[in-house]
Amino acid sequence: MKIKEIAFIIGAEYHGVDFEVTRMNTLADATKDEISFVSNSKYIKDIQNSKAGAVIVDEATKVYVPDGCVALVVDFPYYQMATLSKHFAPPIEESDLQPAIVGKGTTVSPKAEIANGAVVGKNCTIMAHVYIGCKAVVGDNTIIYPSVTVYRDCKIGSDCIIHANTTIGSDGFGFATSRMGEHKKIYQNGIVIIEDNVEIGSSTTIDRAVFGATLIKKGVRIDNLVQVGHNSIIGEHSVLVSQTGISGSTKMGRNVVMGGQSATAGHLEIAPFTTMAARSGVTKSIKESGLTFAGFPLMEHRMWLKLQARLSKLIK
Amino acid sequence: MKIKEIAFIIGAEYHGVDFEVTRMNTLADATKDEISFVSNSKYIKDIQNSKAGAVIVDEATKVYVPDGCVALVVDFPYYQMATLSKHFAPPIEESDLQPAIVGKGTTVSPKAEIANGAVVGKNCTIMAHVYIGCKAVVGDNTIIYPSVTVYRDCKIGSDCIIHANTTIGSDGFGFATSRMGEHKKIYQNGIVIIEDNVEIGSSTTIDRAVFGATLIKKGVRIDNLVQVGHNSIIGEHSVLVSQTGISGSTKMGRNVVMGGQSATAGHLEIAPFTTMAARSGVTKSIKESGLTFAGFPLMEHRMWLKLQARLSKLIK
Amino acid sequence: MKIKEIAFIIGAEYHGVDFEVTRMNTLADATKDEISFVSNSKYIKDIQNSKAGAVIVDEATKVYVPDGCVALVVDFPYYQMATLSKHFAPPIEESDLQPAIVGKGTTVSPKAEIANGAVVGKNCTIMAHVYIGCKAVVGDNTIIYPSVTVYRDCKIGSDCIIHANTTIGSDGFGFATSRMGEHKKIYQNGIVIIEDNVEIGSSTTIDRAVFGATLIKKGVRIDNLVQVGHNSIIGEHSVLVSQTGISGSTKMGRNVVMGGQSATAGHLEIAPFTTMAARSGVTKSIKESGLTFAGFPLMEHRMWLKLQARLSKLIK
Repeated sequence: MKIKEIAFIIGAEYHGVDFEVTRMNTLADATKDEISFVSNSKYIKDIQNSKAGAVIVDEATKVYVPDGCVALVVDFPYYQMATLSKHFAPPIEESDLQPAIVGKGTTVSPKAEIANGAVVGKNCTIMAHVYIGCKAVVGDNTIIYPSVTVYRDCKIGSDCIIHANTTIGSDGFGFATSRMGEHKKIYQNGIVIIEDNVEIGSSTTIDRAVFGATLIKKGVRIDNLVQVGHNSIIGEHSVLVSQTGISGSTKMGRNVVMGGQSATAGHLEIAPFTTMAARSGVTKSIKESGLTFAGFPLMEHRMWLKLQARLSKLIK
Repeated sequence: MKIKEIAFIIGAEYHGVDFEVTRMNTLADATKDEISFVSNSKYIKDIQNSKAGAVIVDEATKVYVPDGCVALVVDFPYYQMATLSKHFAPPIEESDLQPAIVGKGTTVSPKAEIANGAVVGKNCTIMAHVYIGCKAVVGDNTIIYPSVTVYRDCKIGSDCIIHANTTIGSDGFGFATSRMGEHKKIYQNGIVIIEDNVEIGSSTTIDRAVFGATLIKKGVRIDNLVQVGHNSIIGEHSVLVSQTGISGSTKMGRNVVMGGQSATAGHLEIAPFTTMAARSGVTKSIKESGLTFAGFPLMEHRMWLKLQARLSKLIK
Repeated sequence: MKIKEIAFIIGAEYHGVDFEVTRMNTLADATKDEISFVSNSKYIKDIQNSKAGAVIVDEATKVYVPDGCVALVVDFPYYQMATLSKHFAPPIEESDLQPAIVGKGTTVSPKAEIANGAVVGKNCTIMAHVYIGCKAVVGDNTIIYPSVTVYRDCKIGSDCIIHANTTIGSDGFGFATSRMGEHKKIYQNGIVIIEDNVEIGSSTTIDRAVFGATLIKKGVRIDNLVQVGHNSIIGEHSVLVSQTGISGSTKMGRNVVMGGQSATAGHLEIAPFTTMAARSGVTKSIKESGLTFAGFPLMEHRMWLKLQARLSKLIK
């Protein structure tokens, strides 16, 4: 989309040279032909280092935009970012793409649907009522059980198993709220990447990223009814037990274990080899590796045991 | 069904004039051609004001039934209401209805099924493996992702998005338990109504009402893996974050936010603009608008913070 | 599989007489033509009483293996058990079986798939996008709503109702972890058995057993979004409210009630007529019948109320 068209859509003034903008992205990841936004004053320091070709800002933030980056000034950058996101959303399906390519030795149920432009590798099993969206990619030897839905553009590795009724790549939970309390959808134009040798249980939901990718690294084990929010990164060989919820943009190191019904807030980092007991509620980043936590608010497991001992005295 | 047939089914005596009863309903909502029941002495005061044509009561409650309302006396009214509910349940599918009507510009996957008597509006996208039950209604511009199931008679508005593997209108969790501990199903003969501009995530479940409707008002945002119980009302622009559970008959005002893994008990009222932190457990109605709560049992968020500070001292 | 082939697969030495091994099983349940394993010194006492024809042990445990039982010695019995489990896993589908048998009066949607070797009884309703795996069995008068998946070999009784998007028999969450932190899948070669007159909500997941069966006894009521782990036993007429999680190998007596969002650890026993309040977290077995519990850690409900009263004083 042209920058002048974007300015028009979001109600900003722009009188410079017109150029093509290919995507929306974060300040950190945007490149010369991408547009970003600043919705919160705590990100002001990131503007200087951004390589974005354009940025949506408010009047007060405009001064921090470096030379060579177009500043599109609006009253509510986050809300206008939501407005714009719809215009970058690809169609749900594309009938003019080539039919899906399916590798040798792969079995596809006649009751499955693989959309145009998708690629499925060799020796896979794609069972009844599976949907694989357009341009999605599946590696070799992967088993996808009935009624799994893989949204467009998502990538699943080789030697994976995905159990029934699981959803890969549905929209992350994103919206901008007006002063009248109405929510405008932020289109989730990113994807999900699932690396090799991952097993995912049934009725689990893994949201696509708003920009970039939600990433499930190799060797991960995810149980049933788990929620993985948009832009999360689940480290290699990590284990998410049933009914766990990982909020958006949380990044785990390798071999993290999340006990049943545990959860994290968003935008956290969890060190490798951390173990969370069942029902843990993680609200701060964990920097030190190899520890075991419990409780909500979270504390080291041994402290949690001590707390429970104290509480049991309270009622004696 | 005729009142004499009903009396026979539930084992009550009735020797009056026969008349047609069209539905079962609550004391408050039942009309002249409907039947209600009193299962609990706390509802006795509601009998006087009921406009029901008939009511199932026990011997002790019979005296409160007003003139002009037929009292059908049984030993266990709640159990007999369950018995009767089955007889008012419509068939799951009806082959003799007209084929579904689909509006102009709507795309229906050949692998979707839209049952007879359903109506889908204009410019909708109905993807593979979707099921839309008989007499269900979908508005215009609505997107229904793969493997969504919409049970019969439910209504979905315009400009809605429903993500994969979500279920709209499955039976609420209702049964009457005998003295032997066996459960008799209360057929859920109500519906779900989803108003315009609602987005619902993947693998979410919204139960149909036992009578009347479970109601999701306009502009609501519901995340993945959320449970909404029968007869709940979710107020306009409210937000239910992932893995939240709303029990039956709870009514929220507008712009309520339920944090991740939060929950409510049943039969509560929650004031508009209430915010519940993640994991909140709501067991009492909230009357004052605009407050923020946390914890289980629930308390104001600032009290919860204070409590956590006190608890952390206990283990120092 | 022959015992010599098994020895080769897991890297054990065996020079005795060759014989056929039909299945893997627990020490307690294994018979003469089955193989078991000892992964943990606390099970050493069970070896003496085992009727297994062979057992995978480490060097230290070998001496406890009784005469007449073959000891296959490896460094890490649990890990080798995982290795072996794959070789006992049946194929996902079997094209050479007889087509499914469907009883009189049963309606099967043309958009459902019933795999070869399955048997569905009389007067059932099998709706669109249902998958019933090979050799699975469904009794009479059972209703299976859209997009339910029943994995191979599982058994569902008569007069059951299974709501949309529910999964019966997906793999339990089992793996052996190497010293490098990589997880090897333990193939779940058991089944799920659902007895008569059971109702299960939507998007619920019931895992198949690793050996033997996960068992849902007659008259049970399970709500939406519930997780039942492998090898659990849910007692007759028990009630699992929405978003409850039952960990593996937990056994409940009859008429247990698990409140919403409650959970149990694995390998517990819960006495009949126990009631768990919403959000209860059960970490120890309950021996006495008829009590009501709450909290995490679990305590009697009246103690939990007392604790909350004490805590509310802390912040005054």
